[in-house]
Amino acid sequence: MQRNIYLRTVPLVEAVALLKSRLDREALVRTQTVPVTQAAGRITAKPIHAAVSSPTAHCAAMDGIAVLASLTFAAREGEPARLAPGKDFVFVNTGDALPKGFDAVVMIEEVVLAEDGSALVEVSVPPWRHVRRIGEDIVATELLLPERRRLTPFDIAALLASGVYDVEVYEQIRITVIPTGDEVLDPETRPAPGPGQVIESNSAMLAALAAEWGARVSRAAPVPDDPELLAAAVGEALDSDAHIVVLGAGSSAGAKDYSKSVMEGFGEVYVHGVSAMPGKPSILGVARGKLMVCSPGYPVSAMVCFEELVKPLAAWLCRSEPLQRPTATAVMARDVPSKLGLEEFMRAAVGRVGERLVAVPLARGAGLISSLTKAQGLVRIPANAEGVKKGERVTATLLCDPGELAATLVHVGSHDNILDLLASFLMRADTPYRLASSHVGSMGGLAALADGSALFAGIHLFDPESDDYNFPFLDKYLAGTPVAVINLAIRHQGLILAKGNPKKIGGVVDLTRPGITFVNRQRGAGTRILFDFRLAQAGIKPEQVSGYDFEEFTHMAVAVNVQSGAADCGMGIYAAAKALGLDFIPVARERYDLAIPEAYLIDPRVQAMLAIIGDPVFKSRVEALGGYETGLSGKRMRPGEALPE
Amino acid sequence: MQRNIYLRTVPLVEAVALLKSRLDREALVRTQTVPVTQAAGRITAKPIHAAVSSPTAHCAAMDGIAVLASLTFAAREGEPARLAPGKDFVFVNTGDALPKGFDAVVMIEEVVLAEDGSALVEVSVPPWRHVRRIGEDIVATELLLPERRRLTPFDIAALLASGVYDVEVYEQIRITVIPTGDEVLDPETRPAPGPGQVIESNSAMLAALAAEWGARVSRAAPVPDDPELLAAAVGEALDSDAHIVVLGAGSSAGAKDYSKSVMEGFGEVYVHGVSAMPGKPSILGVARGKLMVCSPGYPVSAMVCFEELVKPLAAWLCRSEPLQRPTATAVMARDVPSKLGLEEFMRAAVGRVGERLVAVPLARGAGLISSLTKAQGLVRIPANAEGVKKGERVTATLLCDPGELAATLVHVGSHDNILDLLASFLMRADTPYRLASSHVGSMGGLAALADGSALFAGIHLFDPESDDYNFPFLDKYLAGTPVAVINLAIRHQGLILAKGNPKKIGGVVDLTRPGITFVNRQRGAGTRILFDFRLAQAGIKPEQVSGYDFEEFTHMAVAVNVQSGAADCGMGIYAAAKALGLDFIPVARERYDLAIPEAYLIDPRVQAMLAIIGDPVFKSRVEALGGYETGLSGKRMRPGEALPE
Repeated sequence: MQRNIYLRTVPLVEAVALLKSRLDREALVRTQTVPVTQAAGRITAKPIHAAVSSPTAHCAAMDGIAVLASLTFAAREGEPARLAPGKDFVFVNTGDALPKGFDAVVMIEEVVLAEDGSALVEVSVPPWRHVRRIGEDIVATELLLPERRRLTPFDIAALLASGVYDVEVYEQIRITVIPTGDEVLDPETRPAPGPGQVIESNSAMLAALAAEWGARVSRAAPVPDDPELLAAAVGEALDSDAHIVVLGAGSSAGAKDYSKSVMEGFGEVYVHGVSAMPGKPSILGVARGKLMVCSPGYPVSAMVCFEELVKPLAAWLCRSEPLQRPTATAVMARDVPSKLGLEEFMRAAVGRVGERLVAVPLARGAGLISSLTKAQGLVRIPANAEGVKKGERVTATLLCDPGELAATLVHVGSHDNILDLLASFLMRADTPYRLASSHVGSMGGLAALADGSALFAGIHLFDPESDDYNFPFLDKYLAGTPVAVINLAIRHQGLILAKGNPKKIGGVVDLTRPGITFVNRQRGAGTRILFDFRLAQAGIKPEQVSGYDFEEFTHMAVAVNVQSGAADCGMGIYAAAKALGLDFIPVARERYDLAIPEAYLIDPRVQAMLAIIGDPVFKSRVEALGGYETGLSGKRMRPGEALPE
Repeated sequence: MQRNIYLRTVPLVEAVALLKSRLDREALVRTQTVPVTQAAGRITAKPIHAAVSSPTAHCAAMDGIAVLASLTFAAREGEPARLAPGKDFVFVNTGDALPKGFDAVVMIEEVVLAEDGSALVEVSVPPWRHVRRIGEDIVATELLLPERRRLTPFDIAALLASGVYDVEVYEQIRITVIPTGDEVLDPETRPAPGPGQVIESNSAMLAALAAEWGARVSRAAPVPDDPELLAAAVGEALDSDAHIVVLGAGSSAGAKDYSKSVMEGFGEVYVHGVSAMPGKPSILGVARGKLMVCSPGYPVSAMVCFEELVKPLAAWLCRSEPLQRPTATAVMARDVPSKLGLEEFMRAAVGRVGERLVAVPLARGAGLISSLTKAQGLVRIPANAEGVKKGERVTATLLCDPGELAATLVHVGSHDNILDLLASFLMRADTPYRLASSHVGSMGGLAALADGSALFAGIHLFDPESDDYNFPFLDKYLAGTPVAVINLAIRHQGLILAKGNPKKIGGVVDLTRPGITFVNRQRGAGTRILFDFRLAQAGIKPEQVSGYDFEEFTHMAVAVNVQSGAADCGMGIYAAAKALGLDFIPVARERYDLAIPEAYLIDPRVQAMLAIIGDPVFKSRVEALGGYETGLSGKRMRPGEALPE
């Protein structure tokens, strides 16, 4: 079996620098002349000088009368200068050229017109008062813009105003992307994927990113893992007018990864593997003077390859610098260990909690495109660091508009499907808010509240001793911090089973039967605690349950394991079973509450959220999900309150 | 004469809020369904749920062999588990669905293949090791994205990956802009403007800005100041599919400003005048359910109208929020007084000087589009402030990419045409730098150095007493700060005269002749000081020179006054006279030096600049400008050095 050996992995900046040294951008990317009106975002190839002055003459800067200033020098209140029409003054509107012989403008509000048509002026005006002088803005021949300037909307206006109608700019960078892989389906065909099949989406991501950079992507149809077909596709792309050819996927060291050898058939590979995580299996080379890239298949890896390798090289080819995303300084909510020697791109939910921005790390898998849709920011952990510590100040590169951070509610805690509904209602408000949610279980939510790294925590922690929800845990883990406990809903927990319950599971006692595989929730999840309580009640030990150690982090993840047959049973909420059409055996009704530090109750974002929770329309939508009761929804709970019957 | 009376001017946020209350966005802006691949930047109209799970099955996360984990539990170094091909293991590549009956993947690097085809594994792997579990990224039916989400490139990928191929989004906002004004020329006709004529450029600015917001502009041809023609154009625009109709210019209270009455002919005007500077004469109204705007004519006023009024309303119509430009905190370089009751948008050069970002205020005129091309940032001075103080920390809204600030050299000082050449050379380097230049004269440059608000200052201050340049002034105004003085060039100053010297001016003595008008430089300019010195030498008093008090801020501005006939003579450098084809009588050779605090000499930006100044190619380009000698260029000067002959 032929396997590729990684070249030494190189840091991202080194990889970029190496390719710059191997590419001849003068030969590859030329200039072209385009009309100024179509040139926004383009890069100037030469310094641009003004063709005409602006203003083109001394002009009135106010509506009024043009005068010779010296005729007003003696004027004062009660002793106006009397100016004869046509001779001593003429009416002018803002923008009018000043007629010869006049050197100032008196505002119309300061002029009284006498019956004989003369103008009475009671103010003394100095020369050039209210006059825009010739060339005040731009003088013909002067430098308007240097070369290699990315033209802004204001530049466009300045160019036109000074009589420049065409500009020489560098070509837009053209990228051809070739998705590859036997298991990869072309989204253009709107496929329904079978097990193990993947709908190709990285090329669309690259196309949208490149549009942000000012580059253009054209996409080939996916090519199967066949060296000859791959070579044909790459050859065709190199023959086209593309400046950059990107092969998608097939870049790890797997058996079917022909990308590197295909690339070597056309030119030179300089980088195979970068010291970044995700993004490591990126390949860079040069063929026929063009940049060749093989981007990794996992979406987050592909993003790193696009943003950290292709983007700076595309900018450099175009004689510009990569546009930088805005950044924000935030406080880390948790310790995040990281591998020495790899620069890690950690996705984080970022939002304001109290007076500071917090960054809550999200799931780290390179295959999780959802980690990029949920993240407000990326935190780089440098290669020479073993991670970041809780409480450390970090710089987050923003994936959202900077204005969104202050409008983002950071939730850390248990997962419930109502949170999705809440997110939609929050977005629908006149002042929309975003919900950034990190699902680490109820206990994780309490820890986040204790650290000040969450605005609120969804929790459903049952304490058998006191027969109460949540308060005993708040007393224990958040002693001294006044916390309001607001019910979101009462929900039905139970056993999620395959449709029709083929294995005839009737309750937790059946989980000890041979051939029954369970899927559990993670340690610290309220549902896990409930399950353990039920097991104990039934006298069952964890080791008697096959799959007890197979942990998932959300109700939906548990449900999909059951749906796919990977497990026969899991514990979770009815809404998750219903969403996937599964069977459900109720085990408990429980309170799912929002724990909100009292200090945050006046926060407008929290108030907006509480208003939604108390709204009958919202409640009816919650009930429609199934498995929820809203009798307590929006109520501030007190210790010891029993569930309503 | 019919004149418009301003309604009470209202704050920008109030104006936006008022119009929101008068527009029915549900009726005006509808939804449409578009392919996901074309939906980046669009706003979702509904929550979007996943159609399929991703991954679609438990999949291998590594290249290797799929196994049943329990068969490896006893394996350890030297005592491998022996697995039979097909039965106990199968080869898998990253991404392959795990065949039924297997629950873990052993990396190929950890497998030894025996000759009989069985696999030897010396590690014990737990269940689900190197397995991407079904729905790990996205579970079918779960919420992918809420409504009113601006779709990112990552969202596009997530939608496709979960089998969503079309999305319902709000329409793009369509804006029709109608430039108006008798003096306004259509840039499409590539006009050569006469005195008082203006090349229309605000509509192109709006088109480029709107593209950044995700809106689309269509532009009508300019309409003269004629109520019937204006009404016809507005009526046509309201009949079109535009959501917003923008009339350009004609919005001040001038005699020819028919915009308001034309707008009132179609609907209701709610705002006439906002308490902003620039931007005050903006008009907002509603007709046929559409937003009607009249934007001011001055480019900076128009920018404020577009960015502060049209942009937030366009975003709101589209159920989103306006994209925010990145911001940076900077220290004000100078006091800037501002009118109480008006929110001022001050343009500033922003760059790093030492350890901090400084904001140097640029020219304030609303008519100066060049103030927007030169500015890196906008500083808002709130309506309730009387200005900002030197040293105050301000928030600058960035007009450039945030990455550019650290690569910007802030120059404050005298103006010289070589600085433009320098700016171009700086941009051309491998690591390009930007030059942000504030021209306030040599003395202003010294003050900026003293405050730490400039990286360097161009100065040419002659001290008759010591017969030396610059050092006596540095000793006086920057005592205690070690400053390096590097010559940029020796330049020729003289009298700039109309072509052919029609008034037969032979020297400064002729400036006292009747009928001769002079144009001076501003107080503190080295050229002004030189002129005063020559006047004194000739025994002439300032009041004997007509136009002595008419001040301009740059050599080019002086030259254009002479060129246009507004003045007969000015003092300035030969390069300015040459650029505009004017006559020139040499008066002095002088040293134009760069004063650079020694602490900044190690700054890579300064080093890059010094390398350019010493470069023979640069020197020859300087000489080609005319009126410059480069014999000292790049030399570090010492006190008392004479000019070479």
